[in-house]
Amino acid sequence: MSEKVTALDLPMVDPLPDDTQAYFDLCDEKLGMVPNVLKAYAFNIEKLDSFSALYNELMLAPSGLTKLEREMIAVVVSSVNHCWYCLVAHGAAVRELSNDAKLGEAMVMNWRGIELSDRHRAMLGFAEKLTETPGKMDEPDRQALRDAGFSDRDIWDIANVAGFFNMTNRVAAATDMQPNDAYHSQAR
Amino acid sequence: MSEKVTALDLPMVDPLPDDTQAYFDLCDEKLGMVPNVLKAYAFNIEKLDSFSALYNELMLAPSGLTKLEREMIAVVVSSVNHCWYCLVAHGAAVRELSNDAKLGEAMVMNWRGIELSDRHRAMLGFAEKLTETPGKMDEPDRQALRDAGFSDRDIWDIANVAGFFNMTNRVAAATDMQPNDAYHSQAR
Amino acid sequence: MSEKVTALDLPMVDPLPDDTQAYFDLCDEKLGMVPNVLKAYAFNIEKLDSFSALYNELMLAPSGLTKLEREMIAVVVSSVNHCWYCLVAHGAAVRELSNDAKLGEAMVMNWRGIELSDRHRAMLGFAEKLTETPGKMDEPDRQALRDAGFSDRDIWDIANVAGFFNMTNRVAAATDMQPNDAYHSQAR
Amino acid sequence: MSEKVTALDLPMVDPLPDDTQAYFDLCDEKLGMVPNVLKAYAFNIEKLDSFSALYNELMLAPSGLTKLEREMIAVVVSSVNHCWYCLVAHGAAVRELSNDAKLGEAMVMNWRGIELSDRHRAMLGFAEKLTETPGKMDEPDRQALRDAGFSDRDIWDIANVAGFFNMTNRVAAATDMQPNDAYHSQAR
Amino acid sequence: MSEKVTALDLPMVDPLPDDTQAYFDLCDEKLGMVPNVLKAYAFNIEKLDSFSALYNELMLAPSGLTKLEREMIAVVVSSVNHCWYCLVAHGAAVRELSNDAKLGEAMVMNWRGIELSDRHRAMLGFAEKLTETPGKMDEPDRQALRDAGFSDRDIWDIANVAGFFNMTNRVAAATDMQPNDAYHSQAR
Amino acid sequence: MSEKVTALDLPMVDPLPDDTQAYFDLCDEKLGMVPNVLKAYAFNIEKLDSFSALYNELMLAPSGLTKLEREMIAVVVSSVNHCWYCLVAHGAAVRELSNDAKLGEAMVMNWRGIELSDRHRAMLGFAEKLTETPGKMDEPDRQALRDAGFSDRDIWDIANVAGFFNMTNRVAAATDMQPNDAYHSQAR
Repeated sequence: MSEKVTALDLPMVDPLPDDTQAYFDLCDEKLGMVPNVLKAYAFNIEKLDSFSALYNELMLAPSGLTKLEREMIAVVVSSVNHCWYCLVAHGAAVRELSNDAKLGEAMVMNWRGIELSDRHRAMLGFAEKLTETPGKMDEPDRQALRDAGFSDRDIWDIANVAGFFNMTNRVAAATDMQPNDAYHSQAR
Repeated sequence: MSEKVTALDLPMVDPLPDDTQAYFDLCDEKLGMVPNVLKAYAFNIEKLDSFSALYNELMLAPSGLTKLEREMIAVVVSSVNHCWYCLVAHGAAVRELSNDAKLGEAMVMNWRGIELSDRHRAMLGFAEKLTETPGKMDEPDRQALRDAGFSDRDIWDIANVAGFFNMTNRVAAATDMQPNDAYHSQAR
Repeated sequence: MSEKVTALDLPMVDPLPDDTQAYFDLCDEKLGMVPNVLKAYAFNIEKLDSFSALYNELMLAPSGLTKLEREMIAVVVSSVNHCWYCLVAHGAAVRELSNDAKLGEAMVMNWRGIELSDRHRAMLGFAEKLTETPGKMDEPDRQALRDAGFSDRDIWDIANVAGFFNMTNRVAAATDMQPNDAYHSQAR
Repeated sequence: MSEKVTALDLPMVDPLPDDTQAYFDLCDEKLGMVPNVLKAYAFNIEKLDSFSALYNELMLAPSGLTKLEREMIAVVVSSVNHCWYCLVAHGAAVRELSNDAKLGEAMVMNWRGIELSDRHRAMLGFAEKLTETPGKMDEPDRQALRDAGFSDRDIWDIANVAGFFNMTNRVAAATDMQPNDAYHSQAR
Repeated sequence: MSEKVTALDLPMVDPLPDDTQAYFDLCDEKLGMVPNVLKAYAFNIEKLDSFSALYNELMLAPSGLTKLEREMIAVVVSSVNHCWYCLVAHGAAVRELSNDAKLGEAMVMNWRGIELSDRHRAMLGFAEKLTETPGKMDEPDRQALRDAGFSDRDIWDIANVAGFFNMTNRVAAATDMQPNDAYHSQAR
Repeated sequence: MSEKVTALDLPMVDPLPDDTQAYFDLCDEKLGMVPNVLKAYAFNIEKLDSFSALYNELMLAPSGLTKLEREMIAVVVSSVNHCWYCLVAHGAAVRELSNDAKLGEAMVMNWRGIELSDRHRAMLGFAEKLTETPGKMDEPDRQALRDAGFSDRDIWDIANVAGFFNMTNRVAAATDMQPNDAYHSQAR
């Protein structure tokens, strides 16, 4: 845990509070690592906790979108923004959840490269436009999602997941956040 | 509270849990309104709470950046993204906190339009580039902030505030979120 | 009248010719100020006169577009170009002519943010595209205006008003032209 | 004079007022044609006159910029905007005034393609940035012109010529204005 | 042959191999010059030969596209990329092959400026989009070509010609390659 | 060999000429596959041969750039253009030649994400700018390469490799070319 995970000199609280240490131990046990984004935020436990809570609410709570779909959005947003950290970490998540390395690669490189369902094309097209030109979003963009079978609640979730990665992409880019090396070989 | 605040059909939990109702009552008392973004999230209390917690941590917790500086970043990011909701609401916050309507207008329209300190030019230039081309951020961008007197902890906060509004700008754009009318006349 | 209105050292002709002085006095009487753009041009009376003549012809002469519509186009063009001077001055004009502060704010921030008639959406969409990608204009763009009820003469006027503010936005940006402070509080 | 010069159905006033007819006759005599832009505006004599007056003031009145330099700016702006009418008409003007067909071609295609004086590189670089990203203009941009020997009055003229062609490019694009065929072979 | 044709110090093989000399002599005889692009590559005969072979295969071999159509694509791609060398050389080729100087100028300046057949609008629109946003190409783009009467083999050729000039535009830009002066006056 | 490798109906010559068959057999033996790009071109042997010859000359012939460096350029160009085919195939090549999966991933995602030598940063920065804005290349861009130790001959090679992938990215995008599945797991 001694490697620097960003270009900023912001060491983790030491020792970590018991709750945080327990959470990190759990990560280690389940993922084989503590994701560097958590270490990056751990210079301040309130910041770590509020970031993690929103992340978990968006990516893991019940939704009309599967976890895989949420990860697909995460990676497509990160592809537009060329985010090194998020493409590595969430590219791995897509491979893992889908058991399909090619799908993960396509989300990283260009989702138009492979065949996808109409549902997924609509979802990713919306996330891409929202990332590139948020000021141009309009009713027909929402209608296209409804036409592809998404509910208003689903649209909320697509928007929030896409929005969230537009945030984390920029935090990672601004701080030169480095993904854990272990991601590269996962689920290949 | 019966007007629709977004284009999505996602009514607030009714009745609101006591804690939430108390929070909304407090907003009403202190701000004269419940900001529509809170009503928009209130179809799901977990989502509302995790969003609010991160917001409060970023915008209100202790930081090397003043509250006004954080609002200035919020508005400049929202200006790049042409976000109707955030420009209205946080433009008002800049006017309010600075007691300077012209400063608020310049953040909305073009921060290069008025004279600013070197510190603020560096801070807003960083936030603007991070919003427009996150994939091009590099060490000289961070160094420019350090040269203007910002600490690494300050850089973290600039990045996270700019990141956060890149998220909320997109949530608002994707859902056609409408700001409360009361903002328009505030602190003019 | 002693403040510098641009970053350029180009003082007004002194004394002003009688006609010009009379025009400036009239501005003062009717508007409570002499708009800084006029002072900026007043280092050379021929330049001031030819600029003013074209401005008046476009913005005040009879047209199928109302004066408010012409000001709406002015502000939307200036929003794309992030023009400090024109957003302040013509944002105020939209508020004044419409008696609707919210409409003025939406033109400054994002015209897609509020509900508009089909006529106004077509008009502003055309002005926005013409500003962003003039080389891509084509017959379907004109046809969309005709379909929204505009005559060929109206299309001419939309094009010329949008064109004019693409000029003045750049003159203001290139010279750091400062709007009169009085605009900020007008018609709020 | 019976060909349509734009996609709009806006016939010239018929008969033209004596002054206008005399001006058109003079054009015919000196240029061998009446430039189509004048015919396009001639559906309304006030509009024609105010447009012509500003054009003449900018392009022909005394200035620290030569007439050729003003035409070079006109063409470089029109190249960024891909304006068919202005590139044809003002490309011819550059060839004519410089007696250098290659210079005219380079202004149309890419001014970086040929060797130019530092003065001209600074002037065209400023006009290009002003055209592409007016909202990003700042003091160093003006300083670069001063460093290349331009006075503040010259900067005004560069800004206004560049601004003017950002207007006419858009009027031409919006109306599909067609340049006179005679330009193509001029000064080759 | 002693003038430098690029900004790089890469002199031609001297003496040229017999085959190359014969090829250059043939150019001189048929075109009145050796195109500078060939001299630029002639510092290495293998590079010259492989470049020429691909060029000839694409531009001269049998195809559902006429030679003129292939040159039109070449110029439109070069117009997007503002390539000095290719606009000069292939603009001349369009004028020559079409015997229509105006067509050549429109390809250089803006193909939307003149009236074209539906076939040519579809072909040039495809080449333009492929040049600007290759990552956004999708099945409807190919279908639009089929709807305009192009076969799959024709689509291949459009893609390869557009691709080739996206290569040569960049080789020319990166090396400051200078077109032969003789092109400027050709076929005017 | 029966799967379609592009969206176009252009079957391979059948049977292949002996030379081509031998070449494909050699690919199969050395790479375990025939790269789909070769199959895509094999509907016409002249086109296949001229494409392959240029490819081999650029990527395999002696150069001041290592084969790995040429592949790094290939992938960075393809990352800007979001080219599915080339990112998959040449990303694998970078992993293979460098024996460093992380390097390959960074070239695909964002070369600024990892630490690189000044030489490689200069090389990739040049290739990136040449891909994004070829019309803005200028002498300082070449000088930056010379300052990083590159010879004029090296600059030629960087420009030609970057140019080549700007071609192939567009051929692949226009035809929906599919990379062989085998690449995904190579050198992980």
